[in-house]
Amino acid sequence: MSSIIRQDMSTKDWTIFSVKRAQRPHDYKGSKKKKKILEKYEPSCPFCKGNESMTPEEILAINGGKDWSVRVVPNKFPAVEYIKGSPEGSERRHISGPYLAIDGIGHHEVIIESPWHNDNIVRMDTTHVEKIVRAYRQRFIDISSDHQNQLVIIFKNHGKRAGTSLDHPHSQIVATPFVPGYIRNKMFEAQRYYDDFGNCVYCDIIKHELEDASRLVYDNDKYLAIAPYASVVPYNIVIYPKKHQSCFAETTKDELMDLASVLRTVLKKLYDLLDDPDYNFVIDSSPVDQSGNRHYHWHLEILPRLSTRAGFEIGSGMNINSIFPETCAENLRNQK
Amino acid sequence: MSSIIRQDMSTKDWTIFSVKRAQRPHDYKGSKKKKKILEKYEPSCPFCKGNESMTPEEILAINGGKDWSVRVVPNKFPAVEYIKGSPEGSERRHISGPYLAIDGIGHHEVIIESPWHNDNIVRMDTTHVEKIVRAYRQRFIDISSDHQNQLVIIFKNHGKRAGTSLDHPHSQIVATPFVPGYIRNKMFEAQRYYDDFGNCVYCDIIKHELEDASRLVYDNDKYLAIAPYASVVPYNIVIYPKKHQSCFAETTKDELMDLASVLRTVLKKLYDLLDDPDYNFVIDSSPVDQSGNRHYHWHLEILPRLSTRAGFEIGSGMNINSIFPETCAENLRNQK
Repeated sequence: MSSIIRQDMSTKDWTIFSVKRAQRPHDYKGSKKKKKILEKYEPSCPFCKGNESMTPEEILAINGGKDWSVRVVPNKFPAVEYIKGSPEGSERRHISGPYLAIDGIGHHEVIIESPWHNDNIVRMDTTHVEKIVRAYRQRFIDISSDHQNQLVIIFKNHGKRAGTSLDHPHSQIVATPFVPGYIRNKMFEAQRYYDDFGNCVYCDIIKHELEDASRLVYDNDKYLAIAPYASVVPYNIVIYPKKHQSCFAETTKDELMDLASVLRTVLKKLYDLLDDPDYNFVIDSSPVDQSGNRHYHWHLEILPRLSTRAGFEIGSGMNINSIFPETCAENLRNQK
Repeated sequence: MSSIIRQDMSTKDWTIFSVKRAQRPHDYKGSKKKKKILEKYEPSCPFCKGNESMTPEEILAINGGKDWSVRVVPNKFPAVEYIKGSPEGSERRHISGPYLAIDGIGHHEVIIESPWHNDNIVRMDTTHVEKIVRAYRQRFIDISSDHQNQLVIIFKNHGKRAGTSLDHPHSQIVATPFVPGYIRNKMFEAQRYYDDFGNCVYCDIIKHELEDASRLVYDNDKYLAIAPYASVVPYNIVIYPKKHQSCFAETTKDELMDLASVLRTVLKKLYDLLDDPDYNFVIDSSPVDQSGNRHYHWHLEILPRLSTRAGFEIGSGMNINSIFPETCAENLRNQK
């Protein structure tokens, strides 16, 4: 058998595992990418300490004032924009022929993770990473309280292949006025599992993965990180809270240090094992007005950009992966 | 208003149009990519004329023998593989703890589009492109007749950013033993529209786009090409048969020249306007045993790889696009 196709039991999505495909000849050799050497301060960078006047007005700062550690500002080039007193609900919908459109009202903010241009989560103390996830939580809760927002997404793009446009370490928050089909389908499958079995599907995955341990990368008191059974890309990692929490806003302040620790540890293992790979991570959470439900379980998904999504993946919604998650988890566990 | 969010009426998926985002500063300047200069013959290329013995046994050739024009061979590094007498249906399913897997049985073939290493659809005569789409149709019909297959996907990856591994012009066919959720959702939305309105949603889009003409790129007797209302990326183009056809297998032989013509014309306009962009295209068709249905309408979708899918797109399933399709369509219409 050349390959095996595995199902993600939480989404019912399939990944084709074909180890043979890693042996393909390539006209495009993986030319060793040269990482830019960055200085601690970059005069033209709007996110650097000392250049605070180059950003729109600050929304939040951890250790505020001149000696800020983490800063949150509006995105100067927003995908969606908050406008006070803008139309709501049906008033913001527009019909154009047979088509439907919505005014692009929402929130789009940048979390500046460090005052230093050349900083990186893997080189920070866990106490600094705690400040980043504290800012995530604070802004997630604040943005959720604006009842125009339906979905809040926190994400990070690290490196050019991951779609970053600026080197200074930062992540982003976007809130949209509806729940997109992709999220609705994930919620639907989780609800159906709950209806069938009376458990959160993610809680059942977590229980199994802690017992089985072959895909476990790291865990601490409050969180675990696994390479999922139907990993969509090589070194795909998902971090879950061990306790059932449907929405990221349910995270308590005393859990943040453990969250910072699991995030930093996993990113550092990836950095050391794979030589600073480009990656995205995203916090996938229940829509804000469904917080507290029994069937969904928020998680932070890390997707290294080691492979390229091509025509088959685009056309089928399936993924082809050339490395089994058991191999990735073992390699990462051994990476001290 | 900084942006507008448009809905694809066939899938109910959303795209955020934010023209401002095109003005972002970039630490990664779009370094002008140097295209490799290719020879007509490359001794190490398994797809070149003269090197036929380097591929597995030929499945189909148009103008067979030594002077073949288009050749179809099994993929030497298959994602899924055809094995005679392999288990079927439930017998190929495996349970592992709480998880489900399926043997990777199916078809994975390569359509070698030309004997020449440095050829390109945009430089071929339409009569040669007709041979390529004739091979697509023939293999689609043949593979569909194996009742183990549920979905047949034809796709092409052009250029490194589109995930190609070999320069020699080729496309691929993959058949899988189930219908993935992504396709099932598209079928579901189309069926619901049919139930509500009594028309194929794609037929209604086609009628509107031919009348409106602002997003029309090109059309001939049998096919049209548009930049869709909720285009997922800059210069996203979709080709539809004007007549209702749910499955690509319903294409008749006398339509193939028009299909070749619309495909070649659109790819040439993209090539000339955007300086040979990397792209994927994929033929999106009804599952094989649902051929002849009234609600779905096969189409060929072209996705230039000018932008990078990042954390927001991965986490939300929505897309952010910095150019309106009306602009893209006008630019392509003006590109003679």
